Amino acid sequence: MRDDAERIWTRAIWAILPDEAVERALQGVSFPGRVFLVAAGKAAWQMANAALRCLPHPVDSGIVITKEGHIRGELPPPVVCREGGHPVPDARSFRATEEALELLARAHLQETDTVLFLLSGGGSALFEKPTVPPETLLDVTRQLLACGADIVEMNTIRKRLSAVKGGRFARYCEPARIFQIVLSDIVGDPLDLIASGPACPDQTTCRQALEIATRYRLDLPDCAWDRLREEPPKTLPNVRTEITGSVRELCRAASAVCKELGYEPILLTDCLTCQAREAGAFLASVLCTHAHDGKRLAFLAGGETVVRLTGTGKGGRNQELALAAAQGIAGMTNAAVFSVGSDGTDGPTDAAGGYVDGDTSATLQECGLDIRQVLENNDAYHALARCDGLIITGPTGTNVNDLAVALIQGV
Amino acid sequence: MRDDAERIWTRAIWAILPDEAVERALQGVSFPGRVFLVAAGKAAWQMANAALRCLPHPVDSGIVITKEGHIRGELPPPVVCREGGHPVPDARSFRATEEALELLARAHLQETDTVLFLLSGGGSALFEKPTVPPETLLDVTRQLLACGADIVEMNTIRKRLSAVKGGRFARYCEPARIFQIVLSDIVGDPLDLIASGPACPDQTTCRQALEIATRYRLDLPDCAWDRLREEPPKTLPNVRTEITGSVRELCRAASAVCKELGYEPILLTDCLTCQAREAGAFLASVLCTHAHDGKRLAFLAGGETVVRLTGTGKGGRNQELALAAAQGIAGMTNAAVFSVGSDGTDGPTDAAGGYVDGDTSATLQECGLDIRQVLENNDAYHALARCDGLIITGPTGTNVNDLAVALIQGV
Repeated sequence: MRDDAERIWTRAIWAILPDEAVERALQGVSFPGRVFLVAAGKAAWQMANAALRCLPHPVDSGIVITKEGHIRGELPPPVVCREGGHPVPDARSFRATEEALELLARAHLQETDTVLFLLSGGGSALFEKPTVPPETLLDVTRQLLACGADIVEMNTIRKRLSAVKGGRFARYCEPARIFQIVLSDIVGDPLDLIASGPACPDQTTCRQALEIATRYRLDLPDCAWDRLREEPPKTLPNVRTEITGSVRELCRAASAVCKELGYEPILLTDCLTCQAREAGAFLASVLCTHAHDGKRLAFLAGGETVVRLTGTGKGGRNQELALAAAQGIAGMTNAAVFSVGSDGTDGPTDAAGGYVDGDTSATLQECGLDIRQVLENNDAYHALARCDGLIITGPTGTNVNDLAVALIQGV
Repeated sequence: MRDDAERIWTRAIWAILPDEAVERALQGVSFPGRVFLVAAGKAAWQMANAALRCLPHPVDSGIVITKEGHIRGELPPPVVCREGGHPVPDARSFRATEEALELLARAHLQETDTVLFLLSGGGSALFEKPTVPPETLLDVTRQLLACGADIVEMNTIRKRLSAVKGGRFARYCEPARIFQIVLSDIVGDPLDLIASGPACPDQTTCRQALEIATRYRLDLPDCAWDRLREEPPKTLPNVRTEITGSVRELCRAASAVCKELGYEPILLTDCLTCQAREAGAFLASVLCTHAHDGKRLAFLAGGETVVRLTGTGKGGRNQELALAAAQGIAGMTNAAVFSVGSDGTDGPTDAAGGYVDGDTSATLQECGLDIRQVLENNDAYHALARCDGLIITGPTGTNVNDLAVALIQGV
């Protein structure tokens, strides 16, 4: 079953790499007029590179804004590549974003033009033009973090202090059309949260923004209060969005491979966010229940679990999920579970995740290791290393959360 | 959806009540010769009552051994009712068990005879004849508990100190046949653990028993060491077993009701044992993923979750599971989750479990309650009381673990 598992994770991750994902998003799409390329995020270079390869004609102009060290070479002119600050936006981010806006302004965009907007994780810091002094923007962010505001509240405030977020970039591009390809790294694909939605209609209100600012007693200059009172666009008829390379596509790709290998795929969830070891226990209990169905089944769960820190060992959420499952399927001869991070890294380890089967528990016992104790010490890495259970892929070049698969072969 | 949910839990629990369960187990069964009835466990009286109603002829002799206060009236003679000690076996347990054995001895059992053996939770303490002095048996149990032995280890030792456990009761009944009906209250229906398996072949070895006794440095008299060296029976060709009224049947019954109500039932597991609130989060993520499938789906999970104690509030595992799910389905208009204990009680409360839907989170917010904080304080009871989310059934008369169901209506 290890071979099956390896095929599933390898090919599923392959399918959601930026290149494949962008190619898929552009399939059958054609642009009538001029095309301008704007790419922002950690995968911006790869996405742009793939898009340029797919398009039948060169673009009229373009810019890639990505994180330091993420430019992998020159792109065909006239596309230029710029670096910005991440995770905190800096002067380079602002300069590059301004350059993008000027490039589009110079073009005098028409209705027949298309802005091909490629967005990936990190875009929030890399693509930004504050409408308040940059120090104010940073200070507001600091205040929001300090008072424990959640991601939605942060976003409601921050998009109002920006000339490009909360759909304002799309409004800026009018009357041109925007074809937006989003590589989602947030479970559930909340478009308004990914890079604060430069081409996504705002779903919040000024009233909410003011309420948040008042509730947390934010200390703001007058100019910021003024901005909070300006509504971002609520509809953007010129935008078409393709979400690609997300955890949903990761699950879909994995399902397809499972099917090819003769397993009936059953997607449980693509937005799992519970505790890693409990998710592992849950998946194991699913396998126990279906052990004697006489079918080959693959239960899929995508998402991003969390680790409950109770010890000082080495591991990651995927390794912990797998090891917890090993306890539940101990002794079963027809079951296996793996969990893998699509970016190829899992916690502070060189592994991408873990693979276990019905023998794992016994093997570890022979090594004198008790799974419960190992989990209590958050030390899944060293335990999985003892039973050939580490999944090593190296960095994959994308990050769309994790994939866990529980396999059962009919007996 | 609350109406649907209520119908599901009411009818599912109804189907696994001892009466219904025993009736189902006896359907189409006939006994050629004499029938002797032995019932032991907390549901012994109800099981015997149901069996006596189903059998075409009166039994030749019979005895019911149950917990104090669990005898609900006279049974037709010659069946006698006895009370025993629970959870710790006492002289009454030993006396009643001896009476059962004498009753069978007097009958001079033949090959054509049947012992109808009705077993339910609590049978371990109620049906016992120690082969060491009773003080020794109690002392060994105390030692095993003190050194942290698990249920399997405890059982491996204890069945060897008993004249009826580990399959020895079935051996005692030879050459008669045993028709065993088991009302399982342990997740996974491990027959050798339910009442230490009086009619279940032993799957352990003396070597294991001696190893456990040595490892935990048990302080045993010579007579107990001698008993540990005697192998219980490994095969029992004269036994036929029907497991009924278990969590598996609970799930099956719930599936049938779901189907009737137009939901496609999907059994995830019938042996869930993970943390209650994480199970709730998992089920909610399943609903989020399938919210737009356009189908009416019911995801079922049976088992017995555990509560992680982090606060001092009031609640139970079912209420906690439901409340945790409420967080994950907040705002969804087509989703609901409930979790209910089949015995009608959940933790130290008068509720059997909890029901939540997409409005629950907002309702609680209006009351100034934050679900995360409520869960952290283990106070699900009071929160659910505020949003009409408590399930109240009263004691049901059975105990086969819990049922959680996550419902989605296509949109």
